[in-house]
Amino acid sequence: MITKEQVLHALSHVDDPDLKKDLVTLNMIKNVEITPSKIRFDVVLTTPACPLKGHIEHACRNAIALFVDKNIAVDINMTSHVAGPKGDQLPNIKNIILVASGKGGVGKSTVAANLALALHAKGAKIGLIDADIYGPSVPIMFGLEGARPKASKTSDGKTKIEPITKYGIKLLSIGFFTDPNQPVPWRGPMVSTAVKQLFNDAEWGELDYLIVDLPPGTGDVHITVAQGFPISGAVVVTTPQNVALSDAVRGIGMFLMDSINIPLLGVVENMAYFTPAELPDHNYYIFGKDGGKRLAERFNAPFLGEIPLVKSISDSGDNGLPVMMDEDNPARTAFLEIAGKVAQQLSIEQAKVKVVS
Amino acid sequence: MITKEQVLHALSHVDDPDLKKDLVTLNMIKNVEITPSKIRFDVVLTTPACPLKGHIEHACRNAIALFVDKNIAVDINMTSHVAGPKGDQLPNIKNIILVASGKGGVGKSTVAANLALALHAKGAKIGLIDADIYGPSVPIMFGLEGARPKASKTSDGKTKIEPITKYGIKLLSIGFFTDPNQPVPWRGPMVSTAVKQLFNDAEWGELDYLIVDLPPGTGDVHITVAQGFPISGAVVVTTPQNVALSDAVRGIGMFLMDSINIPLLGVVENMAYFTPAELPDHNYYIFGKDGGKRLAERFNAPFLGEIPLVKSISDSGDNGLPVMMDEDNPARTAFLEIAGKVAQQLSIEQAKVKVVS
Repeated sequence: MITKEQVLHALSHVDDPDLKKDLVTLNMIKNVEITPSKIRFDVVLTTPACPLKGHIEHACRNAIALFVDKNIAVDINMTSHVAGPKGDQLPNIKNIILVASGKGGVGKSTVAANLALALHAKGAKIGLIDADIYGPSVPIMFGLEGARPKASKTSDGKTKIEPITKYGIKLLSIGFFTDPNQPVPWRGPMVSTAVKQLFNDAEWGELDYLIVDLPPGTGDVHITVAQGFPISGAVVVTTPQNVALSDAVRGIGMFLMDSINIPLLGVVENMAYFTPAELPDHNYYIFGKDGGKRLAERFNAPFLGEIPLVKSISDSGDNGLPVMMDEDNPARTAFLEIAGKVAQQLSIEQAKVKVVS
Repeated sequence: MITKEQVLHALSHVDDPDLKKDLVTLNMIKNVEITPSKIRFDVVLTTPACPLKGHIEHACRNAIALFVDKNIAVDINMTSHVAGPKGDQLPNIKNIILVASGKGGVGKSTVAANLALALHAKGAKIGLIDADIYGPSVPIMFGLEGARPKASKTSDGKTKIEPITKYGIKLLSIGFFTDPNQPVPWRGPMVSTAVKQLFNDAEWGELDYLIVDLPPGTGDVHITVAQGFPISGAVVVTTPQNVALSDAVRGIGMFLMDSINIPLLGVVENMAYFTPAELPDHNYYIFGKDGGKRLAERFNAPFLGEIPLVKSISDSGDNGLPVMMDEDNPARTAFLEIAGKVAQQLSIEQAKVKVVS
């Protein structure tokens, strides 16, 4: 009869390539069950969006075959438990990820929305805060114009805002509380108060990832969010031209400041190139080439991917059906890859924190 | 001998099509000189950028031929005197024009820079303030990275900032005072103070038009500038997609608020379409079609023009040589037309004010 020790010994030869340690040391192997004809166990990854999931499963099977029995059936349940920086604040939210850009109009909201949907598609519990006070995009992007979140009383008598759930994601946008036809001429302190409420006064429930779509720049909202909440990391979106990159440099610089110190999870390049349907072999680099890649290299951060300039992406933002919800949209793959890399990078960052502590 | 009265009588049959009154009533005819062989006079328009300049000159010649003498030589000096809302504040600056957008990244800075250059090309004295605190574009767009304005003492002992002159335009950018590699994590009050200094503490000299490139949104800078200075009008830039238009609606709404009340001079649509060099007959409306036109109609404001999505425009912004300075760039015409319409609209707005007062 095969023993649990034999199985664990075999799996101690399988490393998590990101975390650079073996699965047994990382305490990722759970619920080992052995019958004469079959071995089964769980592999508990740090994120359901792990892009190496298939690779790790394959390595486990090889290890059992090599070190235990090459003919026995192996049933592996690939699952995940998202770890997060636990604290007093927002204890039910495991990770808060900021999506930022120095410059506006680079597709930050498109990336935030589709990143949220892609992580949800991989099995994670997701919330999305649209904190772009002067240009909230979530109401249009999710087809929720005119929607108003309900308020409810908690058991201890506090009033809580209920996020609106669409496509499986819990959403709050500053745009749900303002008239789309009315300007929002608010100075900084009012903006900061409004944004804080989206975090503190909402009934988020349990979330693996709360994605925050920040306004452009490095102003009141950024300072309030970065210093007021336990942020796991930031994704920076840019287009390839210099005027956008120089703003992105300042945006990243803010996250890396000592007083803020938020890990940069990587750079997404949007509007990378345009390919006319009639000329599928021609990529037009309208805004220049590889600007996002160079930016990532400059900060020694992962390049998370490039998204082409596609009419259907702009359309999908306008018609309330994000790219991720359109099975036929070719840009969907780009967002799924980006989501995988973001989750992966977050796990790597959290492993770093553990080593330090 | 022809008399001055005959000339003025003839010219009283020529109307300024925008101001809907004749040139004599508008006091636009100056320095009439008559010799036996020639009539000469000045036509003093309200802007050097008047797009009807040629039309008015032609109408004057016809009137002289019809009412005075069809064979006499006529020498007309088409000139201009830019009128402005005189006040105690900034008495040497005749008009302050805001260039705004609800959403960022729609090409507001590109429009502001080329509008300034186009008005200058038409003979006006121009200043440009880049008030986009978190994303200043003027230093890169004008090839002035690392430039620092000098300070000088005025006769009464005050320290004044000297704007940097490039391509004939006096420039100040918040980016001249910050390190391009350092973030600017400033809350609203600090931002407001910095922007006010660009207006008040600079040695602008005499200007026909001071163009102000605002940040996206409707925040601290907008409130500070709109309420703190005598603004002649605002130009709103948008791209055609709904998420940009909805932000532009709020941006325009702010200008039209009772407490702000700034005339909307019109709407510019940027990134209207892309035309591949290999397919000159194909216009790709990547962000949708006619969004800017519909926005202008909604507010009963002039549609100032559309600018195609052209790599050379993005490049020109990056390499310090704006489109207007590149004689071969086909987009130059679009900016010249927009500048003419802006100046025209401003004259119309100012004529309205005169009627009221």
